[in-house]
Amino acid sequence: MFNLENIVDRIKETTESNNINALKEILDSYHCADLAEILQVLKPEERIIAFKAIDEDKAAEMLEYAPAQMQVEILSELGEEQAAKIIVKMPHDDVADVFAEMEQDETENYLNKLPTKVSTEIRELLAYKEDTAGGIMTPHVLTVNKDMKIEDVLSFIKNQAEKNDFELYYLYVTDHQKHLLGVVSLRALLTKPYKTKIEEIMTSDIVKLHIDDPQDAVADIFMKYQYSALPVVDLYNRLKGMITWDDAQDIVEEETTEEIYQTSGISTDLVDEDEIIFGSTIAAIRARCPWLFITLIGEFVAVNVANSFEGTLNALPIIAIFMPLLAGLGGNIGTQSITLITRGLSTGQVTLNAALFHIWKEVKVGFLIGILFGTLVSIVTWRWQNNFNLGIVVGIAMVVNMTMATLLGTLTPFILKKLNVDPAIASGPVIATTIDVLGLIIYFSLVSIYMLRII
Amino acid sequence: MFNLENIVDRIKETTESNNINALKEILDSYHCADLAEILQVLKPEERIIAFKAIDEDKAAEMLEYAPAQMQVEILSELGEEQAAKIIVKMPHDDVADVFAEMEQDETENYLNKLPTKVSTEIRELLAYKEDTAGGIMTPHVLTVNKDMKIEDVLSFIKNQAEKNDFELYYLYVTDHQKHLLGVVSLRALLTKPYKTKIEEIMTSDIVKLHIDDPQDAVADIFMKYQYSALPVVDLYNRLKGMITWDDAQDIVEEETTEEIYQTSGISTDLVDEDEIIFGSTIAAIRARCPWLFITLIGEFVAVNVANSFEGTLNALPIIAIFMPLLAGLGGNIGTQSITLITRGLSTGQVTLNAALFHIWKEVKVGFLIGILFGTLVSIVTWRWQNNFNLGIVVGIAMVVNMTMATLLGTLTPFILKKLNVDPAIASGPVIATTIDVLGLIIYFSLVSIYMLRII
Repeated sequence: MFNLENIVDRIKETTESNNINALKEILDSYHCADLAEILQVLKPEERIIAFKAIDEDKAAEMLEYAPAQMQVEILSELGEEQAAKIIVKMPHDDVADVFAEMEQDETENYLNKLPTKVSTEIRELLAYKEDTAGGIMTPHVLTVNKDMKIEDVLSFIKNQAEKNDFELYYLYVTDHQKHLLGVVSLRALLTKPYKTKIEEIMTSDIVKLHIDDPQDAVADIFMKYQYSALPVVDLYNRLKGMITWDDAQDIVEEETTEEIYQTSGISTDLVDEDEIIFGSTIAAIRARCPWLFITLIGEFVAVNVANSFEGTLNALPIIAIFMPLLAGLGGNIGTQSITLITRGLSTGQVTLNAALFHIWKEVKVGFLIGILFGTLVSIVTWRWQNNFNLGIVVGIAMVVNMTMATLLGTLTPFILKKLNVDPAIASGPVIATTIDVLGLIIYFSLVSIYMLRII
Repeated sequence: MFNLENIVDRIKETTESNNINALKEILDSYHCADLAEILQVLKPEERIIAFKAIDEDKAAEMLEYAPAQMQVEILSELGEEQAAKIIVKMPHDDVADVFAEMEQDETENYLNKLPTKVSTEIRELLAYKEDTAGGIMTPHVLTVNKDMKIEDVLSFIKNQAEKNDFELYYLYVTDHQKHLLGVVSLRALLTKPYKTKIEEIMTSDIVKLHIDDPQDAVADIFMKYQYSALPVVDLYNRLKGMITWDDAQDIVEEETTEEIYQTSGISTDLVDEDEIIFGSTIAAIRARCPWLFITLIGEFVAVNVANSFEGTLNALPIIAIFMPLLAGLGGNIGTQSITLITRGLSTGQVTLNAALFHIWKEVKVGFLIGILFGTLVSIVTWRWQNNFNLGIVVGIAMVVNMTMATLLGTLTPFILKKLNVDPAIASGPVIATTIDVLGLIIYFSLVSIYMLRII
């Protein structure tokens, strides 16, 4: 239905031959979301030519679908005059997000080019922290009075549409001081008789967000209650704005990305998650070093363990070659357990109450896979090295190692959750290292006890 | 605001003391989404007592927020008569999902207890595959005629509300054979003059889903175009139903979970992702063995590499103890790179076109962190083992190992993407094993070349 490579090839041809009309025609036939995807894969110089060929309204809408760095890049390329024309047509919360990514001087330059009404509103939004409900919300909310009748509201909406830009999901009912009193669904508005008073169809048990709610809380509340929009209030319950599901969706995606990063030991506390990929090398190093450093310490413990069995190693150097095999498989099956439990805790599929069920199940899985793989490894080692006892030791170490790995991989996220620590944080690297250390102790102990006694 | 543990304690007390009225009162004060969360942490016997204490309408709505296995469990516990009363009140697409989880016999028993109109519709939904647009959609869509005026549509909606259950997101315009002609937003309906004909306000460039679209395509289209609902049509463009953003959200969550599982080497091809956690031990083992087995083969290659340096190991057994350190850190930093690129490719932040940028950046990061950690490790090893040359070799191996790990971790997802293979599939375990093997070759080669020559 939509072959990106073909389209991009056609666009590259028309920009090269400078055929702006043909370019306009191609671009005009696509949805704004498609355009955002197309522009993203163009080279910067082609991108700006293509952007200028899109008509202003569509260009503004297209930017809403584009990733933040592309928004900033395009607007900077356009120059302040041209950019201001596009910015006025964009939803103000999106503009505030773009400005938040820019240098303060640059932002000021743009703001000065905008009509006062627009710039004042954007300045207000910029005052909220970017990753709180206030920083995410749109201030354009349609509010009604509880004494209005449905027919009044319908004419009010028609009237407002000419003056203001707003998104319609719910109507919010406020008093004259803007305190939030209730919410009316469009369904209720459209299905009840025209003479019905708003008070009769509004819900007063309102799920709402507070202006300072951090964005992970916003994401959680959206996912839990599944409303297509939620009102945002201040400390005094005054309505300040609204967050819609599509903005919430972007946050959920961002939060999931952070969780995935953390599970693989990439810290998102010090560096913003966008910056880790697109920022400076120094930023990337800062995000990645902390847990690598913990791993380093952990692995030095492992080295020490191995070293303390120096006698064993000197007597039987061959046993060393099985260390990567045991560590690799233990780490692997342990990571599987961590992933299952951490992701389950985050989606709500797995609960702390069911911890025993999951621990027991994972240990069973680890033990049975351990038996399977242990047997395989035993036989292969025995025949290959022509050493039955070595086969037995490596096999038993494999069973114990895999069982312990699933136990640790399951137990740790539950313990962290119980302690109110996010189980995603560094579960991966810390547990993998612990598995390495314990695996070595088990293996060398088995060798010392069993093999050194019989050779 | 919502303290789950406190609430659950209070509920446990009232169920134990059999104080049903107090229980009803507590439950009545919570939102359906809260109730779903509360019931999930109750024990099965408490859960069914609590469920029966919720009034039928709210109970039906609560089930929509509950995970699939809890829905099945509660309905089975209730018995067919009682369950049928709840089922009629649930959206039919949700009921079809619950039935899809049950045994066919059981489903038939329930269907026979339902009114014919309801059961016919549910049977139709059950005919579609569960993980396609047809299996996800709701058939209850409000359709209008292009010649109607807005005022006609408003009375039509009021009229329909008495007879049918439907969700209001968009109005779909169809001809008399149900072919989809256009879509009207509620905003357009409410802001344009009453005499406007639907034809004038409808959009004919419609983003739509096909009944057989697989669920990952449904998720992608929702994320890309960000509509709160999308129409579903058959091969002949006849409107069959609609998918709303909250159902799409559930699919996105499921698809993300699958991606996370696959990156840690848990296969979701053979076993459904729910079953891996909640199904039989055999199912869990089947999902986890394939990539562990690949790891096993890879690690046997690593063992072989180490074995081929037997002479080196026998001459200098001490070098063996650094194997876990090198493998652990290489695997760790490699996993970070895989995670960054794979997640980026899946959210669209990272594109194939920018591959060189990312590869170069990751290699820089790997090299610089390698220098940092290599220096540390060199110094520690040198002072601890009182062996300068060993320190140098371990340090250099660390630099090369970490650089290679980031290179492999970045390159592989891009190559898979280029070959049209999902980069999430088994990236993790396969690359980790490859890093282990190459890391050992590098380390032992360095030892052979440098240290054995100088001792």
